[in-house]
Amino acid sequence: MSKSIFYHAGCPVCVSAEQDIVNLIGSSEVDIIHLGEDRSQIEAAEKAGVQSVPALLTPNGNVLHINYGASMADVKG
Amino acid sequence: MSKSIFYHAGCPVCVSAEQDIVNLIGSSEVDIIHLGEDRSQIEAAEKAGVQSVPALLTPNGNVLHINYGASMADVKG
Repeated sequence: MSKSIFYHAGCPVCVSAEQDIVNLIGSSEVDIIHLGEDRSQIEAAEKAGVQSVPALLTPNGNVLHINYGASMADVKG
Repeated sequence: MSKSIFYHAGCPVCVSAEQDIVNLIGSSEVDIIHLGEDRSQIEAAEKAGVQSVPALLTPNGNVLHINYGASMADVKG
């Protein structure tokens, strides 16, 4: 895995953080996944250690929880 | 302000996040400030909106609180 993955769920906190992360890292270096729209990715996100959104999964497998938009329980509804 | 500032306080969570951020953004794009060692910077960090460490102040003035190491109250002791 060479790209980071930014997980979000469309919340205002998520959108703001997404813009910052894309500006900092570069859009070519990060895949954006909207867990509210792509619910099949929720399980993979949880397995990777994502506990809340927005979160950035780094290429080395660390999860950076950035600010706080919603818990994964909220995302799963 | 063209560089980001990464504020931390030497905690294990901080050090791990620092390595990830430097890897993602590049060490030339981020100044690292250890608030435990450089206490004169605490006030500026709080004014910028830093509520806990580790935190990244972006060039456009947004604060990204990354994971959670310690509150600013803890940092001030």
